[in-house]
Amino acid sequence: MIKGSLVQFSAFQDDLSAVAQSPFPEWLVSLAPQLENWLKTQQHGELKAWLKSVEQLPLITPTEISLGDTVTVTNNQIQPGQQARIEGLLKQLMPWRKGPFDLHGVHIDTEWRSDFKWQRVAPHIGDLSGQHVADIGCGSGYHLWRMLEQGAEHVWGIDPGQLFMAQFLAVKHFMPKELQQRAHFFPLGIDDLGPLQCFDTVFSMGVLYHRRSPIDFLSQLKQLLRPGGQLVLETIVIEGGEQDVLVPGQTYGKMRNVWFIPSSKALMHWLRRVGFKQVECVDEGVTELAEQRATAWMEGQSLADFLDPNDNSRTIEGYPAPRRAVIIAK
Amino acid sequence: MIKGSLVQFSAFQDDLSAVAQSPFPEWLVSLAPQLENWLKTQQHGELKAWLKSVEQLPLITPTEISLGDTVTVTNNQIQPGQQARIEGLLKQLMPWRKGPFDLHGVHIDTEWRSDFKWQRVAPHIGDLSGQHVADIGCGSGYHLWRMLEQGAEHVWGIDPGQLFMAQFLAVKHFMPKELQQRAHFFPLGIDDLGPLQCFDTVFSMGVLYHRRSPIDFLSQLKQLLRPGGQLVLETIVIEGGEQDVLVPGQTYGKMRNVWFIPSSKALMHWLRRVGFKQVECVDEGVTELAEQRATAWMEGQSLADFLDPNDNSRTIEGYPAPRRAVIIAK
Amino acid sequence: MIKGSLVQFSAFQDDLSAVAQSPFPEWLVSLAPQLENWLKTQQHGELKAWLKSVEQLPLITPTEISLGDTVTVTNNQIQPGQQARIEGLLKQLMPWRKGPFDLHGVHIDTEWRSDFKWQRVAPHIGDLSGQHVADIGCGSGYHLWRMLEQGAEHVWGIDPGQLFMAQFLAVKHFMPKELQQRAHFFPLGIDDLGPLQCFDTVFSMGVLYHRRSPIDFLSQLKQLLRPGGQLVLETIVIEGGEQDVLVPGQTYGKMRNVWFIPSSKALMHWLRRVGFKQVECVDEGVTELAEQRATAWMEGQSLADFLDPNDNSRTIEGYPAPRRAVIIAK
Amino acid sequence: MIKGSLVQFSAFQDDLSAVAQSPFPEWLVSLAPQLENWLKTQQHGELKAWLKSVEQLPLITPTEISLGDTVTVTNNQIQPGQQARIEGLLKQLMPWRKGPFDLHGVHIDTEWRSDFKWQRVAPHIGDLSGQHVADIGCGSGYHLWRMLEQGAEHVWGIDPGQLFMAQFLAVKHFMPKELQQRAHFFPLGIDDLGPLQCFDTVFSMGVLYHRRSPIDFLSQLKQLLRPGGQLVLETIVIEGGEQDVLVPGQTYGKMRNVWFIPSSKALMHWLRRVGFKQVECVDEGVTELAEQRATAWMEGQSLADFLDPNDNSRTIEGYPAPRRAVIIAK
Repeated sequence: MIKGSLVQFSAFQDDLSAVAQSPFPEWLVSLAPQLENWLKTQQHGELKAWLKSVEQLPLITPTEISLGDTVTVTNNQIQPGQQARIEGLLKQLMPWRKGPFDLHGVHIDTEWRSDFKWQRVAPHIGDLSGQHVADIGCGSGYHLWRMLEQGAEHVWGIDPGQLFMAQFLAVKHFMPKELQQRAHFFPLGIDDLGPLQCFDTVFSMGVLYHRRSPIDFLSQLKQLLRPGGQLVLETIVIEGGEQDVLVPGQTYGKMRNVWFIPSSKALMHWLRRVGFKQVECVDEGVTELAEQRATAWMEGQSLADFLDPNDNSRTIEGYPAPRRAVIIAK
Repeated sequence: MIKGSLVQFSAFQDDLSAVAQSPFPEWLVSLAPQLENWLKTQQHGELKAWLKSVEQLPLITPTEISLGDTVTVTNNQIQPGQQARIEGLLKQLMPWRKGPFDLHGVHIDTEWRSDFKWQRVAPHIGDLSGQHVADIGCGSGYHLWRMLEQGAEHVWGIDPGQLFMAQFLAVKHFMPKELQQRAHFFPLGIDDLGPLQCFDTVFSMGVLYHRRSPIDFLSQLKQLLRPGGQLVLETIVIEGGEQDVLVPGQTYGKMRNVWFIPSSKALMHWLRRVGFKQVECVDEGVTELAEQRATAWMEGQSLADFLDPNDNSRTIEGYPAPRRAVIIAK
Repeated sequence: MIKGSLVQFSAFQDDLSAVAQSPFPEWLVSLAPQLENWLKTQQHGELKAWLKSVEQLPLITPTEISLGDTVTVTNNQIQPGQQARIEGLLKQLMPWRKGPFDLHGVHIDTEWRSDFKWQRVAPHIGDLSGQHVADIGCGSGYHLWRMLEQGAEHVWGIDPGQLFMAQFLAVKHFMPKELQQRAHFFPLGIDDLGPLQCFDTVFSMGVLYHRRSPIDFLSQLKQLLRPGGQLVLETIVIEGGEQDVLVPGQTYGKMRNVWFIPSSKALMHWLRRVGFKQVECVDEGVTELAEQRATAWMEGQSLADFLDPNDNSRTIEGYPAPRRAVIIAK
Repeated sequence: MIKGSLVQFSAFQDDLSAVAQSPFPEWLVSLAPQLENWLKTQQHGELKAWLKSVEQLPLITPTEISLGDTVTVTNNQIQPGQQARIEGLLKQLMPWRKGPFDLHGVHIDTEWRSDFKWQRVAPHIGDLSGQHVADIGCGSGYHLWRMLEQGAEHVWGIDPGQLFMAQFLAVKHFMPKELQQRAHFFPLGIDDLGPLQCFDTVFSMGVLYHRRSPIDFLSQLKQLLRPGGQLVLETIVIEGGEQDVLVPGQTYGKMRNVWFIPSSKALMHWLRRVGFKQVECVDEGVTELAEQRATAWMEGQSLADFLDPNDNSRTIEGYPAPRRAVIIAK
């Protein structure tokens, strides 16, 4: 955990020890230098303030834990003053996008009802018992806890977002030691991970359309898997056939940096092209306004602002409104 | 030129001196180590044999040079025995794909009538006088000589193909010293070239569809140009609108390793997306059988074999037959 | 421990985990890549055979352990057949230079009576309780076990010698798990260790005279120590004052690669020059023939062969015979 | 030459071209990245001002050149106003240590009468005609011009000192183009030069005693030489035999960072030890006060201040006063 008022290398001590003891200790060869480099060159001025908030969270032994739809930590002796303090500190880490969480009675109503997404995904991913599971682009790490609920042995969250790391560490702070030792977050991007070929299951949810090279991204995901492992891929798609691919202009639903939005048929074809043998689209549908919206914990713009006010089937730029597909590939 | 029976670093001496004296001597920083690395790790066993053929070519002072449709070197005193010797050595470098050339009466009838392509391109590229021009994926270098014809000061051919290098060196061997000093070939790929921002004009003909990441490729090309420079891009396209993109299966026209074939409209949109301001498609059409065909200097399969024998508008796999577009972007 | 018939990265799993959990997890940044590099480029053809011998050693739970003058592991139920097997396997790892050891009744009578040296050193090194101790050039690791006897928490042996690694692993094999977890060996040289500034005590015995740059070596040793740590330096010296330094010719006592042999006064001056504040020579004397001699476990030449047969105060080359000093520097 | 108000990569354009055209173009592989790195990380704030002075020097065609004891450039039409201007600018580059120079009537009376040293060295170095000669630690480059006088084809000055570079460029500025093209200066240290094995003659004058590892330094010098090349080594020595080596305390003659001062006998032994076959001491003697003294162009302390005022045979610290030897090794 965090020691000192800035992240130091020793903050990753337990995570690195878990890598050393895993079936893939070779990961240390690239990981340790990357973390050191990150520590030396991290630029985000606010990280220091965020981590200070995390450090100030009170230490409370949980009496009950739920890794269900709302990831919940409870102590039945909690004092109202402590709750107010916790809420104040967690609000320093706004905006909260992926959740919901309930930490000692503080309910974090996140922009995304990520439990909706998990309900679409979970029935299709099989039993995670004993698995090492990676979540590429894990955000605050909400889904990591759900993976532990499904029996995963260790979950490895990968996301360059520094606010996300602070949020993850805040939630982890309240978890019992046994769970802390199994949940990891590294502030890296997928380009930092080589062909590790070590994870039993790899999740990538909501990342593909931000990549300039979707083929390289799919190959990278494939090379993170051990032979026989499975990929769980969730992304925005358009309707259409194998040759339909939207490359939007400068923005899509006000998002910058969106490159390729294929149809699910095109995407499945790409997955087979990079070497997956079994590719199945297990869910596809339009994102509802109830799933992604502004809340007291994310006060900025959300889906309703990104759509054409006169026609919810179009983005504000006139492109098809976000449709999302879940694909399992092995 | 080549010294010794294997390429040595000193073989690139004149080219490196030309870089040092150019407006972009910084290129040496990456180029010199890359060439040394290439020399140490070059794997192609046949390169040695090819270069030996080049070294054995007779030294003949040309009396006439034409850099026109057939790139031609002539000496009016040539002996028939010498011609036979030249022809025998050049045949060692088969298959010859890009031409045609006529070297002291030896006519190299290449698979491609590259002069047809040049006739479509040349009217649109403006005056090259005084320019540094790069050709990414230059093959045997046929077009490099045509660029010199158009007044280019120095032409820089980039292609990892080692047979292509040998063919280029064979042609260069017969050229007068004044032209030799202005024509360069480095056995590298575009990924070896950083954001040099130095060339006045960059050509990329017939490469895009082999790239896994077309967006990155277009960005790389943009970053090779000096501010205000122009890109000349020629590639296979399909018919259709801005969202039509063909990603073939394992082969396209029997070619492996084909990834993205956009429509010219999609491609122009991509070029604008990576930052080109002025993008114009100056030519588009189906490749005719007369332009790409088997010859005595390329005895393998050619276009006729790649098309559906019953329907020349389809490849043998059933995809649309190759259509090619020329786009100028600034 | 060793898994598989060749050393694999996972062989260092427990050691790397110990580094991760130590006060100096940053060491992983350089260490993990170095071990991987060592695994990829290790050249010593015999290592495979040596490690095979180690793997074939029987698994015997010790009933008694002594880390005294003879490092001893005993099981009072040992079978004579097992003893013969152990002896045969350990003889595969000859020559044994540093010891002695007694492993289940197999007495390894090493070339050096390293216990003599330890008796000269031990009274001066203070209490090692709770310390992280490094031994640079540790050989078979005999002294590592003695350091554990003195209370060290973890001992870190550093030596590029691959036979030494096999010997260390053979001894470690017989040790109880609790000691195994505290004794480490990395097949590296001091140049691989940066300015770690982490060890409480650093030993360097019998290395300095092999270094081309003694000043750099002393600086490196200093930079391995945490602030306030102590260096225990043992090396060959000549008699004389602060400006007396022998640089022998091609050999010294038949040893190649001997560079600087200063007087102990010169050496102490050098130590102060590189920044040590407190420098004390606690022992100095001529190496006796009883301390270094050929045995059944080291059948080659030893000290008696390196001296002038007519004058034991001279090496065979006519240089002063080896005199050794122990210096403590802080 | 220098272009723009700061050194840019193009400043080294002609030097890099000379390397490309030399018998050792491979040097570009390390040299080009080193120069770029130097440009990016050069820290010396005053360099900008120094180079500005160099740029402001008037352009005057020389009518007479002498590369003799005083390196002299003359134009018989020089205006007194120009002289004053030159003198003012050159004084910006004080202190001047190695000389003397006379540039259009401005006499630079340097701290060192380097011509005295050259008179001791020159008779022993043989004919330099057609040679590539390196001077490691060349200072202002005075001796480079003397090497050209002796017929060297190209002289390569190596010194990390940025004021020295500015002084060199100032002198070079006044030289005729033909000489400019043959005199080079790179702001590097010997550790930046690998085993180039390319120079016909290598000079190292006044550097050895500043090296922490004299053996490594001598090996590096050896590896700069082509097979059969000669080393000219000049350094401070003490009197004594093969085992006499002075390692002073924090200062020697008020100089910090002095490590090993061997006797000339010890030094010759070291040279043989690193592989030189023929080693000869061609000159040895005490440095006279007339050779190194304060002047109007170097107003700081000089030799007289470094010696014991009561005993000129001792430094102020009580060590033997500087004695210098010239050794030729092949």
